[in-house]
Amino acid sequence: MSKSRIRIGMVGGGETAFIGGVHRIAMRIDDQFDLVAGALDADAARGRSFAATLGIAADRAYDSYLDMFAAEAARPDGIEAVSIVTPNFLHFPVAKAALEAGIHVICEKPMTVTLEEAEELAALVASSGKQFFLTHTYTGYPMVRQMREMIAAGEIGTLRRVEAEYLQDWLADAVEDTGAEGAVWRTDPKKAGAGGAIGDVGTHAYNLAAFVTGQEPVELLAELSSFVKGRRVDDDAAILLRYQDGAKGSILASQVLPGNGNNLSLRVYGDKAGLEWRQEAPEELYFTRLGAPRQLLRRNGAGATPAAVSGSRVPAAHPEGYLEAFANLYRDAAKAIIGETGPSTVPGAPDGVAGLSFVEACLKSAQAGSVWVRLAD
Amino acid sequence: MSKSRIRIGMVGGGETAFIGGVHRIAMRIDDQFDLVAGALDADAARGRSFAATLGIAADRAYDSYLDMFAAEAARPDGIEAVSIVTPNFLHFPVAKAALEAGIHVICEKPMTVTLEEAEELAALVASSGKQFFLTHTYTGYPMVRQMREMIAAGEIGTLRRVEAEYLQDWLADAVEDTGAEGAVWRTDPKKAGAGGAIGDVGTHAYNLAAFVTGQEPVELLAELSSFVKGRRVDDDAAILLRYQDGAKGSILASQVLPGNGNNLSLRVYGDKAGLEWRQEAPEELYFTRLGAPRQLLRRNGAGATPAAVSGSRVPAAHPEGYLEAFANLYRDAAKAIIGETGPSTVPGAPDGVAGLSFVEACLKSAQAGSVWVRLAD
Amino acid sequence: MSKSRIRIGMVGGGETAFIGGVHRIAMRIDDQFDLVAGALDADAARGRSFAATLGIAADRAYDSYLDMFAAEAARPDGIEAVSIVTPNFLHFPVAKAALEAGIHVICEKPMTVTLEEAEELAALVASSGKQFFLTHTYTGYPMVRQMREMIAAGEIGTLRRVEAEYLQDWLADAVEDTGAEGAVWRTDPKKAGAGGAIGDVGTHAYNLAAFVTGQEPVELLAELSSFVKGRRVDDDAAILLRYQDGAKGSILASQVLPGNGNNLSLRVYGDKAGLEWRQEAPEELYFTRLGAPRQLLRRNGAGATPAAVSGSRVPAAHPEGYLEAFANLYRDAAKAIIGETGPSTVPGAPDGVAGLSFVEACLKSAQAGSVWVRLAD
Amino acid sequence: MSKSRIRIGMVGGGETAFIGGVHRIAMRIDDQFDLVAGALDADAARGRSFAATLGIAADRAYDSYLDMFAAEAARPDGIEAVSIVTPNFLHFPVAKAALEAGIHVICEKPMTVTLEEAEELAALVASSGKQFFLTHTYTGYPMVRQMREMIAAGEIGTLRRVEAEYLQDWLADAVEDTGAEGAVWRTDPKKAGAGGAIGDVGTHAYNLAAFVTGQEPVELLAELSSFVKGRRVDDDAAILLRYQDGAKGSILASQVLPGNGNNLSLRVYGDKAGLEWRQEAPEELYFTRLGAPRQLLRRNGAGATPAAVSGSRVPAAHPEGYLEAFANLYRDAAKAIIGETGPSTVPGAPDGVAGLSFVEACLKSAQAGSVWVRLAD
Repeated sequence: MSKSRIRIGMVGGGETAFIGGVHRIAMRIDDQFDLVAGALDADAARGRSFAATLGIAADRAYDSYLDMFAAEAARPDGIEAVSIVTPNFLHFPVAKAALEAGIHVICEKPMTVTLEEAEELAALVASSGKQFFLTHTYTGYPMVRQMREMIAAGEIGTLRRVEAEYLQDWLADAVEDTGAEGAVWRTDPKKAGAGGAIGDVGTHAYNLAAFVTGQEPVELLAELSSFVKGRRVDDDAAILLRYQDGAKGSILASQVLPGNGNNLSLRVYGDKAGLEWRQEAPEELYFTRLGAPRQLLRRNGAGATPAAVSGSRVPAAHPEGYLEAFANLYRDAAKAIIGETGPSTVPGAPDGVAGLSFVEACLKSAQAGSVWVRLAD
Repeated sequence: MSKSRIRIGMVGGGETAFIGGVHRIAMRIDDQFDLVAGALDADAARGRSFAATLGIAADRAYDSYLDMFAAEAARPDGIEAVSIVTPNFLHFPVAKAALEAGIHVICEKPMTVTLEEAEELAALVASSGKQFFLTHTYTGYPMVRQMREMIAAGEIGTLRRVEAEYLQDWLADAVEDTGAEGAVWRTDPKKAGAGGAIGDVGTHAYNLAAFVTGQEPVELLAELSSFVKGRRVDDDAAILLRYQDGAKGSILASQVLPGNGNNLSLRVYGDKAGLEWRQEAPEELYFTRLGAPRQLLRRNGAGATPAAVSGSRVPAAHPEGYLEAFANLYRDAAKAIIGETGPSTVPGAPDGVAGLSFVEACLKSAQAGSVWVRLAD
Repeated sequence: MSKSRIRIGMVGGGETAFIGGVHRIAMRIDDQFDLVAGALDADAARGRSFAATLGIAADRAYDSYLDMFAAEAARPDGIEAVSIVTPNFLHFPVAKAALEAGIHVICEKPMTVTLEEAEELAALVASSGKQFFLTHTYTGYPMVRQMREMIAAGEIGTLRRVEAEYLQDWLADAVEDTGAEGAVWRTDPKKAGAGGAIGDVGTHAYNLAAFVTGQEPVELLAELSSFVKGRRVDDDAAILLRYQDGAKGSILASQVLPGNGNNLSLRVYGDKAGLEWRQEAPEELYFTRLGAPRQLLRRNGAGATPAAVSGSRVPAAHPEGYLEAFANLYRDAAKAIIGETGPSTVPGAPDGVAGLSFVEACLKSAQAGSVWVRLAD
Repeated sequence: MSKSRIRIGMVGGGETAFIGGVHRIAMRIDDQFDLVAGALDADAARGRSFAATLGIAADRAYDSYLDMFAAEAARPDGIEAVSIVTPNFLHFPVAKAALEAGIHVICEKPMTVTLEEAEELAALVASSGKQFFLTHTYTGYPMVRQMREMIAAGEIGTLRRVEAEYLQDWLADAVEDTGAEGAVWRTDPKKAGAGGAIGDVGTHAYNLAAFVTGQEPVELLAELSSFVKGRRVDDDAAILLRYQDGAKGSILASQVLPGNGNNLSLRVYGDKAGLEWRQEAPEELYFTRLGAPRQLLRRNGAGATPAAVSGSRVPAAHPEGYLEAFANLYRDAAKAIIGETGPSTVPGAPDGVAGLSFVEACLKSAQAGSVWVRLAD
């Protein structure tokens, strides 16, 4: 065929995993990747069997990621990129091995489980000449990108306040005790990292605020709770933020508040206008200039900015959603990998380091009784 | 590869067409089709050039659909199915040729431009032993399928009233005079059929009502308007419906009402409860039992029915949308083609005939001054 | 006291009646009326006893409205106006007697139970020199008045389509068989008039459309249903409208659709813009110019028109509601009675006649099989 | 007349004041008060002139509140209660004088400008035998009262998190420099108290959270900002709360965030369910049990609790609003004054003390760099 797609492998993403399937759909939507290899499961036989159903050739269904990187490097048609969709603690060793094998990395968040690892990995990215993409899904939504462009264009004036929330309820009970796979590793500090809700959803909210405003806070204070008895990590966090020039912010991240599905929202206010967005209705962005009527801006509709238009596949009012947001990350990664674009808007290694700095600052603040701490400079 | 996908060709869907791209994404999302052939454009050279960018081999980028069906039939790896995404007037000859070549058909709506053609094609489908799928997109939404299952299960009691609306504003001005491609053929009775809004959006609304309630009306009355000066087809229609057992309905279909993007909605009321759904917020279904609080049912959430669950790829509150609804049609078509399932929920030839019966009844009613007419039995 | 309030009496509005209490609150809110007399109940003793609790002096609690008008006319401090809140069939004789006694009338809708009565009463109003106000409540909402002003100012361009709905569910079952007071007389043609839903809620929707657009339709077609077995009047109606200059409209009026409380809505579209309003969220008016983002206009907020401002008591975002809309009618009636203003925006006798013309046209259309009929010119 | 209303006077509430007019409407809605006296304006002549327009007799339009209490005490028909609607710094002396004159007090919030004054006044209330009502308006909303009853009944289980926000934008610019009356005194620490946004709107949010949950926090941390240059008080506050048994909370109070009108909201989550309410859509309460569909509870509709029913004047879906919420406070105050009821649900002196404790704790926390402080026990 005359069309050349990027050859990609996958680590993790076995049959029962949620996020692996999402990545596979995302890479297919715009048809820029061929998934040709995989080390999909800690149970190697199960992984090979599942690989077959995905159309991965038997000789490219590997028992381990180390095997995969070694074998693929030796093939003329070896993989150019890898998608890492394992539990958190494996992100670091897998990404490191991939970069060392000269393979671009598309990695689930958080980047690693410690800041130390994140910094080591970022240094490796910088020296490797390879690209590293961190799939902070929500930055792929066109209206999120529109917020970012509107703020950069001065539409809201001087930043005053950023309010980010990421609320869920699926950990409201001790579901990890029932053996639910995602819940077990996410509440195990060895596998998920020391942060619970702050790592799993808080980092998304933190990243989203930074992505949209173009600013990182300089200080924070975190009040962490574990509402479910026996839980070993935080499952609820209220965090206050201070920015360099006097702006303020809050993040509320919780996985134990009944009635919240995947309730991520972001509100940003300047001295001239405010912007409000909710992930559960992602096509709508509310924009209100001080003293003017509230406007509903829709994806690819009136007033759409370039990033929102280019992140759209269908006209306004034909809803795109979570999978298309994810596909935007893959599409942008593909463009960057083939060198079509300059710096990608997809979060990268510095964002991963910022995420771990955030998690460690939250833990440090909380351990001292919820006091103000500086973020790593 | 061990995975076998269905080999498919496409007729229409050139570079500037909206709906062809949608079909291609839809067939990729669940990875059950390989697009290997095409006659993509009336301008054959342009079509071949575009085919290359889609990864279609040069020898399978055909100048015409007749060429394609002949050549593919002669190949051992010839196409098993075809996706027809041309202007309306070509649906009939292309589908006919495909069926005669022993190829399954996935066809955009309306099925044909006249009832006579639709009936001929339906007879051909029946005798051909091949499958025919009509892409009434909106039946692919999980919450639409849930409405259907809830109504079939008696949740709303005896049907009283069905209210369907499909409102747009993109034809509010005489955009066909500016040469806008989609507008030009859609307002040309020779290419689109004698119905304007009733054919383009009215048939969707009509089909949706029938799909969800399981009932076709027996009589209707149509008040058609052409609000834009010089327009040769209706661009606005108000239609009243009568059902066999006393239930009533309305359809409002318009493409000239400012502020409406793709505002399709369906409300169905019985004597026990009501259900309300809007395409622009497709993840939400409102259900209210008489005397009880209104409930918000969400895709794949609490109270989800089997069809809504099986039509979902991600958990509740991770929005799926228009492209996933479309992908559900392709997924179900694939299952039916490979014989995995019994009768598919995807609309087929009888629904296409019903759609043309609806259009012709509307025209007949309107020509007589908007009087009641019986629907073809 | 230096403040002079208008002395008012009330006919109907006994202890168990809903709407009488609403009128009393409405007349108090802006403090321009003194309720000093009443014939509140068909059961005279019960009426006198209830009058006492309202602070009406014992000698002004009358056994009948005829007694009241006679006695009050003889007092130097007799009532100047009367509020008529009886079942429909009494509106005519009571209003007639009041006007003949030289008393201004504030009357619940519908004005009368037949068109003949309405025309007689309108003639009497014209010759009496007294004022007649018809409490079409919903015209009192500031955002409804703003719609009217925006349309009159050309904001939506040439009218295309008017969609009015008034949906309830409180008559979804045969509640009249349980003796529920409001339901019993409302479903009795002798007391409510020959129209059921069309009279009780349809006239509100019809009036609202006319009030806001400034236009009456010239032809209509009505499809009436009685969904509840044994009900003697219509409880559901779908009505199509044709306007003089080619605009079209629909009214859907029903009291039997589960999940609808008091779901009155109005959408008006021209060739330049659309306006959408719902009574259940009455502070919000959505305004969308063709090709521009949707705007949310709020009562007394940015973009408020003079009528919306003057119909407000508190700032935007401090919700006013149904009682304040009603109070706006009383306030405007007071201004007109004391001669402060020119023609009031409160509906009057011609609107009452129009309402009965509408009801009779609906019945005539339905009786002939739901055909088009001309509205009385 | 046989009806006896409570004779009431008013201090403050001159022609240009917003809140005085609200109190007067509120006291009229249910017709339980006669406003017979007033010291309405610091400019005595202007106050007398305005009093006349309200129907207050000339000899009861006083130059000062001291004159009023003295003169009224000497009349057999003197006032029984007083409504205090002055700028904040006058609440204390006026209330004190009223209580000493044996007059019941209905007072705007905050109770006083210092905690010391609040405690002195609370002691005086306790010893006076008179009643003191603090008009925390939002506690008058039926759905707020329903939240309180549902939580008390265990509907949400064990409290986890309380999120209260009160956001406005009317102080987003330095409007006090333009002489806007309400803005001038509200930003003057001598007249409003040392707290700006925390006093003006924060106390409402704090009170609402306490009213609904039945719990006061034990510790708080406040991050105060003054975003508008030159402003002498805080205009934005983010506050974290800790409750006795481990529940957590946040209050966000700001008057400088564009796009927020009177955006008060309250969300309360327990381990079993969540409740969400917004003042700008006050008729709607969202209730979601863990694992069940979201329910919309409406005022006086299905599932209404006794307090919501008794706080309603009209059926569900006929919107009541801010003025009716206020009227509920007056109605309940009237019942308590005439001894019809036991303890009122209207906030009283202890709530006023709690409000000032909150303000002072916020200031103390902020002055120390936003650290945790204990609330006065």
